[in-house]
Amino acid sequence: MKSSLKIIPLGGLGEIGKNITAIEYEDEIIVIDCGVSFPDDDMLGIDLVIPDINYLLENQDKVKGLFITHGHEDHIGSIPYILKQLNMDIYATRLTIGLIASKLEEHNISKESLIPVKEGDVIKFNKLSVEFIRATHSIADACSLAIFTPLGTIVHTGDFKIDYTPIDGRVMDLNRLSALGEEGVLLLMADSTNVERSGHSLSEKTIGETLNRILDGATGRVIVATFASNIHRMQQIVDASLKENRKICFSGRSMENVSKVAMELGYLHIPEEAVISVDELNNHDNNKITIITTGSQGEPMAGLSRIAYGNHRKIKLERDDLFIISASPIPGNDKMISKVINQLYKKGAEVIYEDLEDVHVSGHAYQEELKLIHSITKPKYFLPVHGEYRHLKHHADLAKKMGMKGENIFTMENGDVLEISEEGAKISGKIRTGVLYVDGIGVGDVGNIVLRDRRNLARDGMVIIVFAIDMENFYLASGPDVITRGFIYARENEDIINEIKEVSRQKIEECLLEQSTGWQVLKGSVRKSVEVLLFEKTKRKPSVFPIIMDV
Amino acid sequence: MKSSLKIIPLGGLGEIGKNITAIEYEDEIIVIDCGVSFPDDDMLGIDLVIPDINYLLENQDKVKGLFITHGHEDHIGSIPYILKQLNMDIYATRLTIGLIASKLEEHNISKESLIPVKEGDVIKFNKLSVEFIRATHSIADACSLAIFTPLGTIVHTGDFKIDYTPIDGRVMDLNRLSALGEEGVLLLMADSTNVERSGHSLSEKTIGETLNRILDGATGRVIVATFASNIHRMQQIVDASLKENRKICFSGRSMENVSKVAMELGYLHIPEEAVISVDELNNHDNNKITIITTGSQGEPMAGLSRIAYGNHRKIKLERDDLFIISASPIPGNDKMISKVINQLYKKGAEVIYEDLEDVHVSGHAYQEELKLIHSITKPKYFLPVHGEYRHLKHHADLAKKMGMKGENIFTMENGDVLEISEEGAKISGKIRTGVLYVDGIGVGDVGNIVLRDRRNLARDGMVIIVFAIDMENFYLASGPDVITRGFIYARENEDIINEIKEVSRQKIEECLLEQSTGWQVLKGSVRKSVEVLLFEKTKRKPSVFPIIMDV
Repeated sequence: MKSSLKIIPLGGLGEIGKNITAIEYEDEIIVIDCGVSFPDDDMLGIDLVIPDINYLLENQDKVKGLFITHGHEDHIGSIPYILKQLNMDIYATRLTIGLIASKLEEHNISKESLIPVKEGDVIKFNKLSVEFIRATHSIADACSLAIFTPLGTIVHTGDFKIDYTPIDGRVMDLNRLSALGEEGVLLLMADSTNVERSGHSLSEKTIGETLNRILDGATGRVIVATFASNIHRMQQIVDASLKENRKICFSGRSMENVSKVAMELGYLHIPEEAVISVDELNNHDNNKITIITTGSQGEPMAGLSRIAYGNHRKIKLERDDLFIISASPIPGNDKMISKVINQLYKKGAEVIYEDLEDVHVSGHAYQEELKLIHSITKPKYFLPVHGEYRHLKHHADLAKKMGMKGENIFTMENGDVLEISEEGAKISGKIRTGVLYVDGIGVGDVGNIVLRDRRNLARDGMVIIVFAIDMENFYLASGPDVITRGFIYARENEDIINEIKEVSRQKIEECLLEQSTGWQVLKGSVRKSVEVLLFEKTKRKPSVFPIIMDV
Repeated sequence: MKSSLKIIPLGGLGEIGKNITAIEYEDEIIVIDCGVSFPDDDMLGIDLVIPDINYLLENQDKVKGLFITHGHEDHIGSIPYILKQLNMDIYATRLTIGLIASKLEEHNISKESLIPVKEGDVIKFNKLSVEFIRATHSIADACSLAIFTPLGTIVHTGDFKIDYTPIDGRVMDLNRLSALGEEGVLLLMADSTNVERSGHSLSEKTIGETLNRILDGATGRVIVATFASNIHRMQQIVDASLKENRKICFSGRSMENVSKVAMELGYLHIPEEAVISVDELNNHDNNKITIITTGSQGEPMAGLSRIAYGNHRKIKLERDDLFIISASPIPGNDKMISKVINQLYKKGAEVIYEDLEDVHVSGHAYQEELKLIHSITKPKYFLPVHGEYRHLKHHADLAKKMGMKGENIFTMENGDVLEISEEGAKISGKIRTGVLYVDGIGVGDVGNIVLRDRRNLARDGMVIIVFAIDMENFYLASGPDVITRGFIYARENEDIINEIKEVSRQKIEECLLEQSTGWQVLKGSVRKSVEVLLFEKTKRKPSVFPIIMDV
């Protein structure tokens, strides 16, 4: 009898970002993707959120390799951090490898673990093997994976859409998926992001027509903000610009990086003389310039915002500039983007964005595309992946509507272990998963307590009460002094500062009279009475820190 | 020759919320609306944002009254705060007055300044007079205003849509607007919120059909989250529930408040026996219960979130509950709402929301409705209002497309003074406007410096270095002690705390050796060297506070 197969999502299931999944059979584990996510609003000061790979570390002898479906941040962003904990061979197609390599360089990590593959390649281990299958997505060189196991084949779509007219002409390999379906697919894991959208997504090519029309009418500079990773979008902007004899200037760190990698590897085609640097902009007429920049999500530190608010070092907004925001707001970013659009209009520029023109299409499959994949792969079991919980739920519903039995569908959360054996499939347990916060160069040294303190400080600021006590003779040697930050405008509110001092002094002297009171009690007593005073006077709850010096 | 007329938006122009406009002719000023807005993410700890009415205070002898178009927070929310600074007669229709009255009661403010009016009423002063004109919007009893001035008539639409089948049967008074157009409209001020949407908004009545169908199939409790102020929506939920013999329970403070006011004033019709309190829920079968609650924006402290996360005091989620979110995300809230939806699904409930069914329509006019208003009022000048700057800009474009001359259209910002005389109209100046932050009971005592401090504290926390110095003899009497909050998990990072002490001690001793160094220099020197140390070691920038005690 065969052993059982375990599928364990370590991150990214039922949430956005940090995709990482382990597939385990006996003494072999393969890992799929290794993404990062960006902090929620309440994760104050956090730069990045990476998955806790405790499970992989405990089983590191089993880990055979990391397989990357495509080069988006939520699939590759944690690699530099994870490699520091666990060295793995990394398999991916050429562009993806190029993007990972430039990340590793930034972190000064050796690139020797990177192994480029091409579609159709099969990486074989003793019991598991992995085949790369061409897919289409909003980044070039995306792949689905087939994982062959002693119990049957797993198809993992990766992030995908079905684009019959992709920019590079390389349509998703539906024939291969179909052949796998004929042979028998044990488990399908499929992208759920757009399951709430009916119909079929539009081809990336439709954007090109809109861009041609817009650029045809543009009389000044054209400044396009888009995702740095969307090389096909970049190519279409380039093509539309070249038609109008415009030079191309890439601006913004990630835009410069990615375009460089993509050009070197042959994924982005531009005649050398058509590319100009930001310093050369002044050598060309405005109507001969297209700038492709970062910041399509309204990020305050990225290119688009800097230009809008006049703090870009090299690019100053001009009144005949035409801005194109060729992107959709990622949930949570709509307000930031709207602010940038307002600012651009205030400065007199023209702005074209998704609400006005078809300047963006999604990279994720809609309902009819998902149905196609279910239909041709004919899986025995189904595990919806990629998307928030609501999307997984709706993807499960879609599979049911297509005739799958509810008990063969698994709507899971991170850490749930899906165990498949010859008897059947079930969620057989839960392993520890979680996240680590990256803040500056620290990984994991900011936890929930630190974040709670930041939130408290952020809400109503803080009040420090400092005083010196001669503990031998039980008298107040100095203070109390009061320092506030973020609480109230102290210069105009001296009364309240004086009241804090008064209340504190009273408490200190009461405690000193007793002579036996410990410092903790003294501190607690001062804190409590100041908190009560401040809430009564202001209905605020600043963090109150009494500090005692022993002299 | 006649004097000139001034139109001065004091808030709400080119942004969401806190609408307030002054219209001035000689010694008379009338004020339109007095709204509040909610803090942006970076306004840490702020509860509300209200307009700075400095201009009205400086001209308070001229102010004749405050005219309210409808009872939404962004039109009435600042009234309690503004009335404390400037007493004004307040004119509004009955429901609006009812909603304002309940606000004033909460703030213990006299209601004697409230003057209920009905549509068609004209309030006359010496030079200015104001007529209330029936409009349709996502709250009952909404009005447009005609302001008659010696120079001509101003039409202010207020927030509106054109609903030919409103729930109360009271269609917007297009005939009156048309008659005013025939007589000649000097200036049109019109709602721009939905100017980016083509076509015509759907009637509120369409929601009723969807609700009927959904409730017809519901087998357990139905829990609907919607805007408390949308009384027509409430009525439709009630009607669909009564058809299925369900009892109605209003839950959540604002939902209870508004439904009470609306029932008392006859805007919401429910047989008395059909309303049950939250304590009576257990007396009825689940399939005979509809709960109408707050929290449709995913607000963590409101009804829907509390039920979802299991911390509602009275309502526990059950597996056959059907939730309906009858609202659209206000920009910035999509992530919060999505979290609540995910949580409801995880708990096994069913959820219906805008992406899945037509359970919400907008209350603001789309392009074809706006064109209708422009067309029948035939204004000489046009001032787009209500909406972000991009919307004002597109509304101006729409007017131009309809044949208006660009020089007769004014896309303005808050504080701009539009001055109209017999010679023409122009932006003739700018007055001081701005906002005041409400935090707890304090109004205006948290300003930009306090907010900057909160942001700094929130980002990387703080490090306090405290030491006592005998300044007569220039020696370090005690310390330095180090206290951190929100910076790093201190217990696991003793090394860095010790390094902070070491660096500080060194600096202090260097300074003391010189004997002449002032405290500010000493503090600055300690702060600087600790900041450098911490950035080098952690790439973080906590707020560093050196505190010296003199003993």
